[in-house]
Amino acid sequence: MPAPERIWTAALIVIGDEILSGRTQDKNVAQIASWLNVQGIRLREVRVVADESDAIVEAVNSLRTGNDYLFTTGGIGPTHDDITVDAIARALEVEVEIHPEARAMLSGYYETRGGLTEARLRMARVPAGSSLIENRMSGAPGIRHGNIFIMAGVPHITAGMLDSLTGTLEGGLPVLSAQIGCWVAESEIADLLGATERAHAQCQIGSYPFFREGKTGANFVIRSTDAAALDRCVAALSAALEQGGWPVVAGGI
Amino acid sequence: MPAPERIWTAALIVIGDEILSGRTQDKNVAQIASWLNVQGIRLREVRVVADESDAIVEAVNSLRTGNDYLFTTGGIGPTHDDITVDAIARALEVEVEIHPEARAMLSGYYETRGGLTEARLRMARVPAGSSLIENRMSGAPGIRHGNIFIMAGVPHITAGMLDSLTGTLEGGLPVLSAQIGCWVAESEIADLLGATERAHAQCQIGSYPFFREGKTGANFVIRSTDAAALDRCVAALSAALEQGGWPVVAGGI
Repeated sequence: MPAPERIWTAALIVIGDEILSGRTQDKNVAQIASWLNVQGIRLREVRVVADESDAIVEAVNSLRTGNDYLFTTGGIGPTHDDITVDAIARALEVEVEIHPEARAMLSGYYETRGGLTEARLRMARVPAGSSLIENRMSGAPGIRHGNIFIMAGVPHITAGMLDSLTGTLEGGLPVLSAQIGCWVAESEIADLLGATERAHAQCQIGSYPFFREGKTGANFVIRSTDAAALDRCVAALSAALEQGGWPVVAGGI
Repeated sequence: MPAPERIWTAALIVIGDEILSGRTQDKNVAQIASWLNVQGIRLREVRVVADESDAIVEAVNSLRTGNDYLFTTGGIGPTHDDITVDAIARALEVEVEIHPEARAMLSGYYETRGGLTEARLRMARVPAGSSLIENRMSGAPGIRHGNIFIMAGVPHITAGMLDSLTGTLEGGLPVLSAQIGCWVAESEIADLLGATERAHAQCQIGSYPFFREGKTGANFVIRSTDAAALDRCVAALSAALEQGGWPVVAGGI
């Protein structure tokens, strides 16, 4: 029997009053979750906290141990409500310092945009001991400190930072998934789903009901790190549903 | 001087592998946050956890004290991956029981839909001592236990449950907000923003930069529980921006 596979995990802290007030629909959870999965890393928990130092410190210190990686988004701009760097430095009990490479980057970026003011220089501040994460979209870089990755809040800037990290983090086997759908109330096939999952120990089955055009349906997502096990589970579930009289839509509805 | 206003707070636990895997874009955080604000309750923290009993128990026990209200979404359907009720009962150290009213509701709902099977009866299970939250969209109700509100994961069902709770929870003053926008890099007006916030102690100013049509801009959200203080802060910030040469777009860009 092979040794049990090592599972790599990450947590994410979304920092921002705008998410907690309902003003802004978060996009970073789904984006980072999908990206992590391709790296073979599972997102295990997300916390959304306010732009308050104590809340950030508590979340960072709860999540940076117990997970291989911790990501944060938001609060690294030049304005007074951008307190992420200071709060993370406080959590890590290190000083905040100007990163010389970040200063040089910002200096270049703002050369034709009015110069490097004091407010802009704030974006070169990092917890002491950090390295930078490239930002291809605008001047201010992301920040890496040990297993902590401090990213932008604006989703397309975060996307650029993730792109520059692709392939650089150690991970395990990515979770593979397949989806099938049926026009059936999930309560009708609950037993069938449970029995199929129990018979396929390497797979998890999620059931996601919906109501469209006045009709009840559900999509079923089968997940596994083993491609052959995944295929077997999808085949078994599809056969059981078809046998029950519910035509299966491959790929989901 | 009036006594400091009591601030009512809530936390939210979003339960679901589908959010952590990136498959599903969460809509409940923004929806519940906006609804809570109208009730005069501030959403202080959100946690997204997997469909795992230990993770749910830990989050529930961390958040049910220290906040006036705790909401959960997800995991209350009839399938094997719906473990929210059992996990919350475990966190509260109470039994799970069939709620007679929920059984009657489901029995009525499924009378013309194939009858109340054992899987469907799962949706009548509640932590002992619970009352029900009306679900106008489908058969299965939400559940209230003390200060914990157990809601559906499907956003439009959650919306119906929130609607039936509207006006029933005690809250404080709602946070009022106003937004203005400028075509300006936020780094240019960072000092101006900070100074304006410091001069208006009853207000918070959030700065939300964006890039559109190749141009840099930012929206500023001013929040306060005091309408007059809010108006004064908006007027002062608008005047300062205009004076700096940045025309202000009322309502934001």
